[in-house]
Amino acid sequence: MQAVIAVDAMGGDHGPAVTIPACLDFLSARPEARLLVVGQPGPVGEELSRHGGGSHPRIELVAASEVVGMDEEIRSAIRTKRDSSMRVAIDLVKAGRAQACVSAGNTGALMGTAKFVLKTLAGIDRPAICGVLPTRKGVVYALDLGANADCTPDHLLQFAVMGACLVEAVEERASPSVGLLNIGSEEIKGNDVVKKAGELLKASSLNFHGNVEGNDIYNGTTDVVVCDGFVGNVALKTSEGLAKMMADFLKEEYTRGPLTKLAALVSMPVIRAFRRRLDHRRYNGATLLGLRGIVVKSHGSADRLAFATALDRAAAEVSHGLNEHIAARIEEMHRRGELAGTNGRASAGKAAA
Amino acid sequence: MQAVIAVDAMGGDHGPAVTIPACLDFLSARPEARLLVVGQPGPVGEELSRHGGGSHPRIELVAASEVVGMDEEIRSAIRTKRDSSMRVAIDLVKAGRAQACVSAGNTGALMGTAKFVLKTLAGIDRPAICGVLPTRKGVVYALDLGANADCTPDHLLQFAVMGACLVEAVEERASPSVGLLNIGSEEIKGNDVVKKAGELLKASSLNFHGNVEGNDIYNGTTDVVVCDGFVGNVALKTSEGLAKMMADFLKEEYTRGPLTKLAALVSMPVIRAFRRRLDHRRYNGATLLGLRGIVVKSHGSADRLAFATALDRAAAEVSHGLNEHIAARIEEMHRRGELAGTNGRASAGKAAA
Repeated sequence: MQAVIAVDAMGGDHGPAVTIPACLDFLSARPEARLLVVGQPGPVGEELSRHGGGSHPRIELVAASEVVGMDEEIRSAIRTKRDSSMRVAIDLVKAGRAQACVSAGNTGALMGTAKFVLKTLAGIDRPAICGVLPTRKGVVYALDLGANADCTPDHLLQFAVMGACLVEAVEERASPSVGLLNIGSEEIKGNDVVKKAGELLKASSLNFHGNVEGNDIYNGTTDVVVCDGFVGNVALKTSEGLAKMMADFLKEEYTRGPLTKLAALVSMPVIRAFRRRLDHRRYNGATLLGLRGIVVKSHGSADRLAFATALDRAAAEVSHGLNEHIAARIEEMHRRGELAGTNGRASAGKAAA
Repeated sequence: MQAVIAVDAMGGDHGPAVTIPACLDFLSARPEARLLVVGQPGPVGEELSRHGGGSHPRIELVAASEVVGMDEEIRSAIRTKRDSSMRVAIDLVKAGRAQACVSAGNTGALMGTAKFVLKTLAGIDRPAICGVLPTRKGVVYALDLGANADCTPDHLLQFAVMGACLVEAVEERASPSVGLLNIGSEEIKGNDVVKKAGELLKASSLNFHGNVEGNDIYNGTTDVVVCDGFVGNVALKTSEGLAKMMADFLKEEYTRGPLTKLAALVSMPVIRAFRRRLDHRRYNGATLLGLRGIVVKSHGSADRLAFATALDRAAAEVSHGLNEHIAARIEEMHRRGELAGTNGRASAGKAAA
């Protein structure tokens, strides 16, 4: 399938200066892909010319006069910025002109607008943000990373289904293992929502590993880790803060004096290899799962390589038919009574209706 | 004040082999301190003799015939192990023979037994686990790290008071800043409990900084970070997992071949300095705050240095009159109507009764 991706060229901390060269890199690596590049014609055209992509045969420019600010409120983005690059890119997915869109714009506005325009897939109550993190064994897909602060057990089950489908599709791994993020303290072993979610997961046809704890994320204990958006967001941002602090501490120690600088020089291949294993740019691109259309959120501060990675992710999700896979799986689970069924759970009833 | 500390000599992964030499190190560094060393006379006596502490003038041996297992259930620990080293150490605090106790035994059993034996301070509904983490600027005190999976806004306010008192007492820092752990997503900005807790903190006499996000923990944005025990436990264990993975990746890269091993040799002072800045042993010892007695939990896998750090922490808390400080602060806040007052909050009413 020839992927057509709508790109919000204006989003992120750097706008077209990053998104445009990343688009050109992406197109060079994927000769079958096409891009609808959405943004203000002036800045977008300038960057295209600067990088020699002035009349790229697989780029179509789509004008959008407005830009959603990185701190803009969701309401304002949806109601007053109908001609923003973000909104127009999502509209192109809705209209079927693109199969996916990618934006480095603000997460809340992107999720809010995508929900408003695209709506959720049948059987999914709430879309979730699914990110990819490096582990000892490879990668882990974690969701929700911040879209839903309060979740019911049914929501967590739906997240698990979507996360498993994403791994099956993009990583081409059959029956990926799913872990439920919990705490190991003897005293409580989690809250009621998590306990109930564990029962639902156990009864489902998913490859449920059981509870996992925070350290299991980086141990790569499971392919998918499921949690509510509050916990997931804290875990993600805590990780970002710690990794950055450790990297900076190492740099400080290596630049302390002439001898340590010499050690740094000698260690350069080691440090480069170390950095590469943890390079967040190689994992950039969180998927907004559960929408009627593929939406990938790039980190706002993404550079050229990172933004190209997010475009790659969107293309992979399109070519693997991610949403068709999720829809089929949800339907199958409803048929088996794992999601709907006889226990009268609200979300299941809604989805089955 | 001459600190007398009861030590659960049998607790932790290594028992007396670690706790006894750590006790002797602690006593050497603190000539005014005394220890009540609780455990099975055989193994404890052997380790004392091995380390030349057979008849230390400031050690009193207290026999306890049983040991609480690292995976033992709380109920079983409380009901059936009345002569465990953990229980006897806590009993010594209750009886006033020790001002604090330290254990590397299992967290749930320690918290459960301590609550059962010591009860909570007036005005405190739920004890919390408060840990110390290294940051870019120094250290941060974070609570709750796992005792309470579900919290009300009042609980979070009480945690904030206790955390601030701990920093005031032990770090001797006036009016420490308190951050409320939240998520920054535009879409939701946290759940209802956190929102309400933010209002209570804002209206209190604490030095409330406002919301903080996961990355603020290691940025050292505030002196205290408050969250529920589910979120805190996930953040802590995720951090442990990530730090361990990064350290192991670095080691793997440095030991890959002859040239990288040479680089490691040249870099040894750098690596040592780097390790020291993040050495978890220097931060060992989480305080079980809110009990009528000081209880410090050492990491189960603590080595000699780490366990001695936990003993130091307990001694510092005793010498600074931590619990008297918390009690006075709680009373003052009740008087001002910050905890009790006119809004009929359940916990406040209970505490004032």
